[in-house]
Amino acid sequence: MRPTPLLDSLTGPSDLRTLDYRELEVLAEEIRAVIIDSVARCGGHLAPSLGVVELTLALHRVFDSPRDRIIWDVGHQSYAHKLVTGRREAFRNLRCRGGCSGFTRREESPHDVVDAGHASTAISYALGLATARDLSGEDYEVVAVIGDGALTGGLAYEALNQAGALKKHLIIVLNDNGMSISRNVGAMSTYLTQMRLNPRYVRVKGGIKEIVESVPLVGAPTDRLMHSLKERVKNFLIPEFIFEELGIKYVGVVDGHDIRAMEKDLSLARGVEGPVLIHVVTRKGKGYPPAEREPDLYHGVGPFDVETGKFKAGGANPTFTETFGRVMCEMAREEPRLVAITAAMKLGTGLDDFAALFPSRFFDVGIAEQHAVTLAAGLALGGYRPVVSIYSTFLQRAFDQLVQEVCLQNLPVIFTLDRSGLVGEDGPTHHGAFDLSYLRMLPNMTVMAPSDQEELRDMMWAALEVKGPVAIRYPRGSGSSRQVDSRPRPLEMGRSRVVREVEGEVTIIAVGRMVGIALEAAEVLTRRGVEAEVVNARFVKPLDEEMVKERAEKRRLLVTLEENVLHGGFGEAVAVLLQEEGAGCRFLRLGLPDRFVEHGKVDELFVSLGLDPTSVAGTVLRSLESVD
Amino acid sequence: MRPTPLLDSLTGPSDLRTLDYRELEVLAEEIRAVIIDSVARCGGHLAPSLGVVELTLALHRVFDSPRDRIIWDVGHQSYAHKLVTGRREAFRNLRCRGGCSGFTRREESPHDVVDAGHASTAISYALGLATARDLSGEDYEVVAVIGDGALTGGLAYEALNQAGALKKHLIIVLNDNGMSISRNVGAMSTYLTQMRLNPRYVRVKGGIKEIVESVPLVGAPTDRLMHSLKERVKNFLIPEFIFEELGIKYVGVVDGHDIRAMEKDLSLARGVEGPVLIHVVTRKGKGYPPAEREPDLYHGVGPFDVETGKFKAGGANPTFTETFGRVMCEMAREEPRLVAITAAMKLGTGLDDFAALFPSRFFDVGIAEQHAVTLAAGLALGGYRPVVSIYSTFLQRAFDQLVQEVCLQNLPVIFTLDRSGLVGEDGPTHHGAFDLSYLRMLPNMTVMAPSDQEELRDMMWAALEVKGPVAIRYPRGSGSSRQVDSRPRPLEMGRSRVVREVEGEVTIIAVGRMVGIALEAAEVLTRRGVEAEVVNARFVKPLDEEMVKERAEKRRLLVTLEENVLHGGFGEAVAVLLQEEGAGCRFLRLGLPDRFVEHGKVDELFVSLGLDPTSVAGTVLRSLESVD
Repeated sequence: MRPTPLLDSLTGPSDLRTLDYRELEVLAEEIRAVIIDSVARCGGHLAPSLGVVELTLALHRVFDSPRDRIIWDVGHQSYAHKLVTGRREAFRNLRCRGGCSGFTRREESPHDVVDAGHASTAISYALGLATARDLSGEDYEVVAVIGDGALTGGLAYEALNQAGALKKHLIIVLNDNGMSISRNVGAMSTYLTQMRLNPRYVRVKGGIKEIVESVPLVGAPTDRLMHSLKERVKNFLIPEFIFEELGIKYVGVVDGHDIRAMEKDLSLARGVEGPVLIHVVTRKGKGYPPAEREPDLYHGVGPFDVETGKFKAGGANPTFTETFGRVMCEMAREEPRLVAITAAMKLGTGLDDFAALFPSRFFDVGIAEQHAVTLAAGLALGGYRPVVSIYSTFLQRAFDQLVQEVCLQNLPVIFTLDRSGLVGEDGPTHHGAFDLSYLRMLPNMTVMAPSDQEELRDMMWAALEVKGPVAIRYPRGSGSSRQVDSRPRPLEMGRSRVVREVEGEVTIIAVGRMVGIALEAAEVLTRRGVEAEVVNARFVKPLDEEMVKERAEKRRLLVTLEENVLHGGFGEAVAVLLQEEGAGCRFLRLGLPDRFVEHGKVDELFVSLGLDPTSVAGTVLRSLESVD
Repeated sequence: MRPTPLLDSLTGPSDLRTLDYRELEVLAEEIRAVIIDSVARCGGHLAPSLGVVELTLALHRVFDSPRDRIIWDVGHQSYAHKLVTGRREAFRNLRCRGGCSGFTRREESPHDVVDAGHASTAISYALGLATARDLSGEDYEVVAVIGDGALTGGLAYEALNQAGALKKHLIIVLNDNGMSISRNVGAMSTYLTQMRLNPRYVRVKGGIKEIVESVPLVGAPTDRLMHSLKERVKNFLIPEFIFEELGIKYVGVVDGHDIRAMEKDLSLARGVEGPVLIHVVTRKGKGYPPAEREPDLYHGVGPFDVETGKFKAGGANPTFTETFGRVMCEMAREEPRLVAITAAMKLGTGLDDFAALFPSRFFDVGIAEQHAVTLAAGLALGGYRPVVSIYSTFLQRAFDQLVQEVCLQNLPVIFTLDRSGLVGEDGPTHHGAFDLSYLRMLPNMTVMAPSDQEELRDMMWAALEVKGPVAIRYPRGSGSSRQVDSRPRPLEMGRSRVVREVEGEVTIIAVGRMVGIALEAAEVLTRRGVEAEVVNARFVKPLDEEMVKERAEKRRLLVTLEENVLHGGFGEAVAVLLQEEGAGCRFLRLGLPDRFVEHGKVDELFVSLGLDPTSVAGTVLRSLESVD
């Protein structure tokens, strides 16, 4: 990497004010180089962060962080912010254990106002902070930076709606790159595009008003008409935008790579009463040609080669995501009523091929999980078989819709929860730590977890036969299946499967990819003279009670192993059954703890949580050795 | 009640087309009389249903239900719809066991398209149905009827945003009465009011366009200006409304009590391509003077006297809601940083006095639970102590915000969940059946449940001392406290309380109002020769483990009794502990079943679920008598 003298010389964001615009340009280049270097090694959100380098510099020059509060929606675009607020060193280990988080985290820096990770929250937070400020008579600025993609989320609208009414002074920076995570969707997007593509449409606004006022009034009947017309034109030209109609002053469109222009508008915004929105247009991936060309591909990435932009080869096995996408296409060919819904995650959930092959049966609703689920309910009521594919942690956004719109009506909607369990480098906001609990409590819901990609295929086909809602949860990355052919194996509903058949004193019942951990742990145990059977639970709801009861009678120790919080999870279901049965065997519940798990590599996290094979085997041995 | 010959003569909604407008007026009167009569006896949503009688008739005359799908958002305004679709008899027992539901229910009638209950879903459902229709080449109409209040919900916006982009033909009827549940809030509301109050603003739209086109072009420079102006005026006048800017055609404002006018616009809407919104203005409570005068008071009511409008006296004891409201005022006086947030439920949550006394510290965000919680997080980050008061079932809307915005950051936000457990007549969409499960799984969360109103007071004061998030859940109605004085008793965190101290073979550990049931059950047991200790759990998280362990050693039978689904609930937490301890005592978990519970009086529902004192005592006796 080239040296970065300007960035290295910064002691804090206030130093930015000592630089001239030529130096700022150089600094922006240095920042981009550092971002590209770290992300190429550690993975991360490349294109979003590259897009807002100049915006970040302008914000930190105009506002006095941390006194003024700059809130980055999602926080995946905050890399430049991290670099200018004293985290140059930690950024070398971006998203690694002990290194910088990939999102804003309060514990990392006083400049990080919120622990971010999910979209569409920034305006709500900002309104809360601005209200607190006004109540206590303080006078700092509150700035929310939110992408056009995040505006598809209903939460952003709920906050805009109240901001327009409460009239608290706050500054919303709309970072508009015409993209959310992949190509943006929805009417709001079309609307913003209009404004973006026609800067005159915006810039002439003031001009038109003057034009109207200068039109000479001619003749008597025309006079009255023209007067009325003038009034009307003024009324319509001034509050013409959605934002202004919602009571939020609008400034735009501003070039998001022109620091001077942004500074001018941001400074103006400070003086505006009430809420004001600055429409900044940025280029996602700016400054790194591969990312500029394919911003959605470079939205969130694993390690890549900086020179070529080529991604480092992953494992040879197909990922769960890839398998899901392939099986969806296969199922769609056989089942014409199958439709797919995603919330701004076409690539992330593996639905790109499906979308290309079956465009009329594919729906990307934007970052709008609530609507995704209710739309699916409507499609199911209309006789279709919707598959809603949403990451585990994001489906939390639609919990009430799961309850009310799907489970209450027992509608045949299939939910596929990608990124369940620990996702690794994205950390606590993205770990899918709760889904087994929030799904298991729902009446009518069937909950499955495949141990490998072939089983994912089998479960998807089996789900089509179920008359009510089904959820299938699987992790990020690939599993042990080398390849996945098209033909599903039959899957008996509610039945587990023994995957390591031995007679011994221990049975480990594992869920999802923990089956692999359990098998490895069993090998360790064998070397220590203990034989452990391993059962792949497959179903979290309904529980295979017969299997549990049988083991409870035969074994000295039963162990459950799941990648979910223990509260309300699979192990609790087993514990309750054992309790009801008055089972005499010992019982160990292993899973995620009752706290939020940090970022880092999944393997490292498993070790830190005692969920790697060696730790699991050790815990089993200790339990066997302990005296009652 | 007067006779209702016209209503009685209807065999189905198609009969409405045989009536003339004079007869329809008479029918509307008959329907109102029946609604008032049933609600006066059974309670229900009076004002919303009275407001849409004419709209209902117009809809059923223009559309051919159930072939055409009419989706009532929330469904609390569907009483006239029920009456004209063959439910005259069942409506006599509105909201009673076996009688009509207070919302649309698919099992009740083919004319009920969805099981409704929560707000802001209708446009999503409609879009799903319209998409299914188009995919399968059918040609029915899909109509969503949604109130202006429900438009404050982000889900409605998410759906509008996609509807505008997908361009599927569907009809949205905006039922605008300027009220949601109480007075409406937010910028969208202000905006709608402008349109409502200035019908000319809307009606002249077409006229203005003609005017502009007829303006003579004068002189050379003016010519060019005028031409440009004309283009601009056309552009601005035609898509001037938020809806049109989102790609949704707008028709309005229509008088919602003029059947003929609505029929004209609804018929026109059938022919429009793509999505169209008809803005109908109705008067909430129309036709019943007390409800017209105080529509928020008569939004959802218990039994009342038709002549006077006076509500039948409730019990003498203060309700939990009233106690909450009073204690909030007392706490606000001592703690200047206390602020209150509600989601369109100022009256329902008992915050009306607080709002009047501390207007700058009270925030009604509209039907926008996600924003309510994120706003609270922002206020907490700004140093305030927000109390978010939302019904148990509606807080499900903000589950992800509980996880991400509050618990992850361990912010001191207090959640008070009114209407927890069974709410009775409002049925499955409104029972607070899941909160103990969805709250208990969250790291950092403290979960309490008061057994009576005095304990609610104590818990509220205790919650102020906690440095992280706290949830307090309590039921609808009143408890056993005759009165609640201002002085809180100290409450030890995490500790339960013995409320019936006897040495015997049974301990019942009860949560919230089930403590009362447990005490009565213990009396029954005494008469049967069994002595049962009763413990008020108070805390669901953290669990009072010491208490449980001690009882597990001393008793033959431990019973948990909770008003929450068993999956993931309090009893599971106790079962896990007993399992871990290898406790030898028997254990019974009593609570709500793994299915949705119907509507009816709470006492009747308890009996049907085996959760009344006699049933509980019987279950305990059977368990004691059973052979291992």
